[in-house]
Amino acid sequence: MVYNNNGERIKQDDLKYNLHSWSAQGKLDPVVVTKAEGIYFWDAWGKRYFDMSSQLVNVNIGHGNKKVIEAIKKQAEKIPYMAPPFAIDVKAEAAKKILEVAPDSMGKVFFACGGAEANENAIKIARMFTGRHKIFSRYRSYHGATYGAANLTGEPRRFPSEPGIPGFIKFFDPYLYRAPFEFKDEEEASKYYVGQLREQIEYEGPQNVAAIFLETVTGSNGVIIPPKGYLKGVRELCDEFNILLVCDEVMTGWGRTGKWFAFENWDIEPDIITFAKGVTCGYIPLGGVIVSKKIAEYFNDNVLWCGLTYNGHPMGCAAAIATIDVYKEENLIENANKMGVVLGQELEKLKSKHPCVGDVRYIGLFSAVELVKDKETKEPLVPYGRDSEKIMPKVLKMLITEGFWTYYHENMIIVAPPLIIKEEEIKEAMQIMDKVLDFVDNNIVK
Amino acid sequence: MVYNNNGERIKQDDLKYNLHSWSAQGKLDPVVVTKAEGIYFWDAWGKRYFDMSSQLVNVNIGHGNKKVIEAIKKQAEKIPYMAPPFAIDVKAEAAKKILEVAPDSMGKVFFACGGAEANENAIKIARMFTGRHKIFSRYRSYHGATYGAANLTGEPRRFPSEPGIPGFIKFFDPYLYRAPFEFKDEEEASKYYVGQLREQIEYEGPQNVAAIFLETVTGSNGVIIPPKGYLKGVRELCDEFNILLVCDEVMTGWGRTGKWFAFENWDIEPDIITFAKGVTCGYIPLGGVIVSKKIAEYFNDNVLWCGLTYNGHPMGCAAAIATIDVYKEENLIENANKMGVVLGQELEKLKSKHPCVGDVRYIGLFSAVELVKDKETKEPLVPYGRDSEKIMPKVLKMLITEGFWTYYHENMIIVAPPLIIKEEEIKEAMQIMDKVLDFVDNNIVK
Ligand SMILES: Cc1ncc(COP(=O)(O)O)c(C=O)c1O
Ligand SMILES: Cc1ncc(COP(=O)(O)O)c(C=O)c1O
Repeated sequence: MVYNNNGERIKQDDLKYNLHSWSAQGKLDPVVVTKAEGIYFWDAWGKRYFDMSSQLVNVNIGHGNKKVIEAIKKQAEKIPYMAPPFAIDVKAEAAKKILEVAPDSMGKVFFACGGAEANENAIKIARMFTGRHKIFSRYRSYHGATYGAANLTGEPRRFPSEPGIPGFIKFFDPYLYRAPFEFKDEEEASKYYVGQLREQIEYEGPQNVAAIFLETVTGSNGVIIPPKGYLKGVRELCDEFNILLVCDEVMTGWGRTGKWFAFENWDIEPDIITFAKGVTCGYIPLGGVIVSKKIAEYFNDNVLWCGLTYNGHPMGCAAAIATIDVYKEENLIENANKMGVVLGQELEKLKSKHPCVGDVRYIGLFSAVELVKDKETKEPLVPYGRDSEKIMPKVLKMLITEGFWTYYHENMIIVAPPLIIKEEEIKEAMQIMDKVLDFVDNNIVK
Repeated sequence: MVYNNNGERIKQDDLKYNLHSWSAQGKLDPVVVTKAEGIYFWDAWGKRYFDMSSQLVNVNIGHGNKKVIEAIKKQAEKIPYMAPPFAIDVKAEAAKKILEVAPDSMGKVFFACGGAEANENAIKIARMFTGRHKIFSRYRSYHGATYGAANLTGEPRRFPSEPGIPGFIKFFDPYLYRAPFEFKDEEEASKYYVGQLREQIEYEGPQNVAAIFLETVTGSNGVIIPPKGYLKGVRELCDEFNILLVCDEVMTGWGRTGKWFAFENWDIEPDIITFAKGVTCGYIPLGGVIVSKKIAEYFNDNVLWCGLTYNGHPMGCAAAIATIDVYKEENLIENANKMGVVLGQELEKLKSKHPCVGDVRYIGLFSAVELVKDKETKEPLVPYGRDSEKIMPKVLKMLITEGFWTYYHENMIIVAPPLIIKEEEIKEAMQIMDKVLDFVDNNIVK
């Protein structure tokens, strides 16, 4: 412990030696964290923060969970690492436990290190299994930053990975708050969007399309929840044309939306599920792909051309086993549902009170607040991709300074606390949000 | 511990629930490992194996190192995970320690989860920094299995990631054992290959080329060691045309070749180093990119469009700090040099004794045995990519059955034991190799 929790020295060396993601490095002023427990973490000067984004919407069980820490310690003592070819108890058990909470139609797991790698492998598996090469995915989605995952991604974080991989096609998601028309109801909207997708598939040649990738609920681009009937409609298109449906459950899986996987909310089953984040809640890096029994069988006789040094990593698998136990033993999925109601009520209050709140969207403990200049016209608080006055960073800074940790995307603030959060804690934290939104009302929107 | 080390049950569930990499699943019979220590591991029935490949050439410090295990346990207790935006003591310290063993010209580290992700980020960084889009890399190289890394890769494991990303160009490496001519000496060979590369760059337009990626010593494709003058020549080409030189040190870094990084063997410095494997010896997944001071500075004012949930993972960083200490405290780099001499002598003995050994290549504790049908004609023991009689799997199976664990690529067997190995242990293990090669001489080559 060369730094002995000396915040200044940690910050100095951090900035001197590390490159920080998605930023210019020159003006960074990172929070130095030296302690974390439950829904809170503390900086080196003792200041406490509500972790209202569960870090990157992954620490669902909260910080410092003893059961997972014990499992990690035990596995480190036994076998921290063995290479992919071996059979290892925790790798077998982790895959089994994951399949137990997935639909019966699912067959096997391929482990990787994170969400991007999960999607990379899902792309390859879909292409191998179908023998087709085109991959559909949606604008306003994020699937990771490696080349394959970035080429799935439908927002600016994919630009540095372009010119892109041939055969990756984008379509528009049902973002009803900003849809081109007022729909009569959700079903009508779904019909429109599925119809548009069908037309696009026809023009790309259904026989060329391997898979449709979607975030079951679009996450970092603003918790965009599919309207009733949409996912069923996409599922039916996939069935009609023998296209694989891949649900990216990296952010939405593991209780976040009040179900093990978000697609359960709409009674559909994908052919492939990609996961990461909540599977270990970040305690050890892990991600992976769950494939249907049908796909698993195909690879009995056909080579699976996928691999990585850390595939089926024993430490990640041990952490996953313990984490899944924690979800069950602490009834976290039930709690996500119960507390989701509370969070929803708080969000609706903010929306009716604040002129700057255009929309609030929530499901389970997964939510976003969309800020506008004008509730009527819905003009976003900042123009897409061009927040040149750095308004959103200022809003975020205020929240963080008041002890409400989260992050934003464009004009949207993510609210997604750990699933262990209690009613009083939600209310206390949301008072901070309320106060900051007052400021936005009075000083930015005017 | 639901399996209680019951080998049969572990194997059954492993095969039932997991997809194994680079294989058809139908006929797999994985070794069930329940214990590992030093240069050995044991299966569930108590059989002991020499780990003569250090798993995937990554467990350089051997299995069960107490110091690294303690560091992992301690970090799990303190803070197993915080997201990338924060400054964390172990993230600062790990980056600092890595830079201390890298050349002075290096400036900052960007952490990822493995080798593929390291290369993915290096590609993006090179393109951002130079504003150019073409990327050169070599046939017979392996850089990982995600789309970007696979498109760098110059062997069949990239095929499932094709059609490829535009602008990725391949050139031939100096594989002198199978070169088109007999060169007078290494320098002459280097001159030829650098000349060829220069011509190719000219025809691709030097102003379009962002970076040249190379494995400093080609690893899994058969430990192909660059001839004298080659890397200097490539470095000079890069300087002339302002192209970045990226050394993929995922496999060769961390003492494997008797230096911290393999490029030190030829007195050159790259602009970017990618690393993984030995940095934590697999105990926790980690990889990353080291960039020159010049590149680091560029990102002071320009956004680094790279990111992943597990960037700068505290558990990986804690493991890296301890692992680097182990290399130093146990003089492992020195030992790699000393034991490399012993291994080299053993390999030369095999070459002079066995008709089936066409070539042996070694540097530090990194080596390969290339098998042939005929020493004169150099006809490979199996044709490239078409070992339809499954001869190499049989040879490998014999080695493994005798307790010599390793892996092969085409007609080449990797020998790369942990850097803690002792002289007697090398000799004992290589007796197994000797015996198996006798069998190959007598029954396959005939
Ligand atoms: C839906 C989704 N998919 C994939 C990813 C990429 O995961 P990772 O950051 O682990 O590579 C993310 C990360 O935020 C995500 O939200
Ligand atoms: C030279 C080299 N680069 C990159 C990689 C990919 O690393 P990973 O398997 O951690 O993705 C490997 C893996 O063997 C490698 O040998």
